[in-house]
Amino acid sequence: MTKITVIGGGTGNYTALKGLKHYDIELASIVSTADSGGSSGSLRDEFGVLPPGDLRRCLVALSGNRGDIWRRIFEYRFEGEKENNNLGNLIITALTKMTGDLPSALDAVSEILEVKGQVLPATLDKSNLCARLSNGQVIVGEANIDKPQHDAGLKIDKVFLEPRAFAYKKTIETILDSQLIVIGPGDLYTSIIPNLLVEGIAQAINQSRAKKVYVCNVMTKNGETNNFTADDFATVIEKYLNGPLDYVIINNKRPAEDLLNSYQNEKSFFVESQSSGGNYRKIFSDLIDEEPLAQENGKTRPLIRHHSEKLARTIMELI
Amino acid sequence: MTKITVIGGGTGNYTALKGLKHYDIELASIVSTADSGGSSGSLRDEFGVLPPGDLRRCLVALSGNRGDIWRRIFEYRFEGEKENNNLGNLIITALTKMTGDLPSALDAVSEILEVKGQVLPATLDKSNLCARLSNGQVIVGEANIDKPQHDAGLKIDKVFLEPRAFAYKKTIETILDSQLIVIGPGDLYTSIIPNLLVEGIAQAINQSRAKKVYVCNVMTKNGETNNFTADDFATVIEKYLNGPLDYVIINNKRPAEDLLNSYQNEKSFFVESQSSGGNYRKIFSDLIDEEPLAQENGKTRPLIRHHSEKLARTIMELI
Repeated sequence: MTKITVIGGGTGNYTALKGLKHYDIELASIVSTADSGGSSGSLRDEFGVLPPGDLRRCLVALSGNRGDIWRRIFEYRFEGEKENNNLGNLIITALTKMTGDLPSALDAVSEILEVKGQVLPATLDKSNLCARLSNGQVIVGEANIDKPQHDAGLKIDKVFLEPRAFAYKKTIETILDSQLIVIGPGDLYTSIIPNLLVEGIAQAINQSRAKKVYVCNVMTKNGETNNFTADDFATVIEKYLNGPLDYVIINNKRPAEDLLNSYQNEKSFFVESQSSGGNYRKIFSDLIDEEPLAQENGKTRPLIRHHSEKLARTIMELI
Repeated sequence: MTKITVIGGGTGNYTALKGLKHYDIELASIVSTADSGGSSGSLRDEFGVLPPGDLRRCLVALSGNRGDIWRRIFEYRFEGEKENNNLGNLIITALTKMTGDLPSALDAVSEILEVKGQVLPATLDKSNLCARLSNGQVIVGEANIDKPQHDAGLKIDKVFLEPRAFAYKKTIETILDSQLIVIGPGDLYTSIIPNLLVEGIAQAINQSRAKKVYVCNVMTKNGETNNFTADDFATVIEKYLNGPLDYVIINNKRPAEDLLNSYQNEKSFFVESQSSGGNYRKIFSDLIDEEPLAQENGKTRPLIRHHSEKLARTIMELI
């Protein structure tokens, strides 16, 4: 069976996995554990565990058909007086404490959710994501980069982990054993690159005989990728990968203008692309969700997102 | 199939159910929802749900053989900086919020845990347990009665619910349909009687053609049942039941002296009994656990408890 490994974290990863799980493939998802915000961050601070949020989302994306009650339990968010906490994150935290380590906890959750495929942390080491800006300022913590407090006009020069983190052994084995490696979609510096910063990951990707694909974001993100074109995204990936991509998958369907306008507030813009440039092959396709998702932070709001099935179909054409 | 309904809450109920579930019977457990302490109490205060703790324990007692991972998840207790919280209680709370009511949440948990039998709340109404002491003082809240702040020399004259609470319909139907009703064991005023205070429950028990059995506690409890004999316990039950018991099951095996000594600190003493007295039939038997349980609040400590199988066997002899 073809082995496909998706590398990322966050909503983009979730979307890719949800589409790919319907194919007859061996699917693995590698997830950054450098998160520091929200429910994940508070569990990390209070219980000393690796942040479970992105792992949880991937597990839910790959969950089987046992009925959706467990998915709903894993996605439930308490909105209490004291703190918002995601129930799935709490369960993963409890299982980590009970079993003694994160991989055993993930195995247990995989059984509970009848997960199709594997969800693997990039590293088991605890580490902080740091960003050095073009003025020399260093920002510590994924959440502080993700929701920028800094002058968004300043570019991110470099991101790094502090302290160094080393790849989880099984993750390396899975990468080496893949036929297709899909990087992204997802926030470039806060979801995708943190995986490549873990020592051993980029080397394994380059060593692997898999085709390397990067799925470019549909929209730029303020403070991270302002004014980025598709090639800018891919160039950063290749820089941190320290090796070449084979393919870059790029959405070429412009979302409706009113949707685009609603993103202007957060200074997020449609990613433009050119057919030339880069040593990778570019694959252009309509990849966006025609019926934009709603519900974010309890509010209904139209969103611009990749469409699970369209994206999965485009990826599957590469094998 | 013989229908047996156990009425209570707390550890005693858990013990009875754990033994009874191995018999080929239709088992139901009716649980008081007047708890106000610990994890249950904090969820009640924060999320406005009925306190899930005792319901959870009964669900776990009746859980099936799907492997113990679920049981462990439901029994896991976070010991964080902020607050101790039981994960099973959080899951029941989330399901109550998701499904809109407690019975639907209990159905979902029953499916997850493959519960053999039914766990039913006495009432869906929110109410506080109150106790009037012999000096006229009124104590509000189950937790304040359970861990007495008051002069333990003062007797409890009366307990009542404020505001009034009315029985859950399915609970009444289950009681009426039973062949055997087992009341207790458990803390008299804080776990057992609160069920009988719910309007409709005592009437249904009296109306039912079931044999009525009370399982007396092995030890007295400071501030609740100081100096109580087995007949004192049974007399209070009959008073709140406003009807007669058919049987009272009484342990006649005195625990080892060093164990009894360890209970003196909390002013808890062995319940003495006489063969005469009362209009019920007394059934004497060795009912205690020879190998006392350990682990309470994270500390290992020998405990005096009913033995699940011994108790179940004695109960089953009544059918």
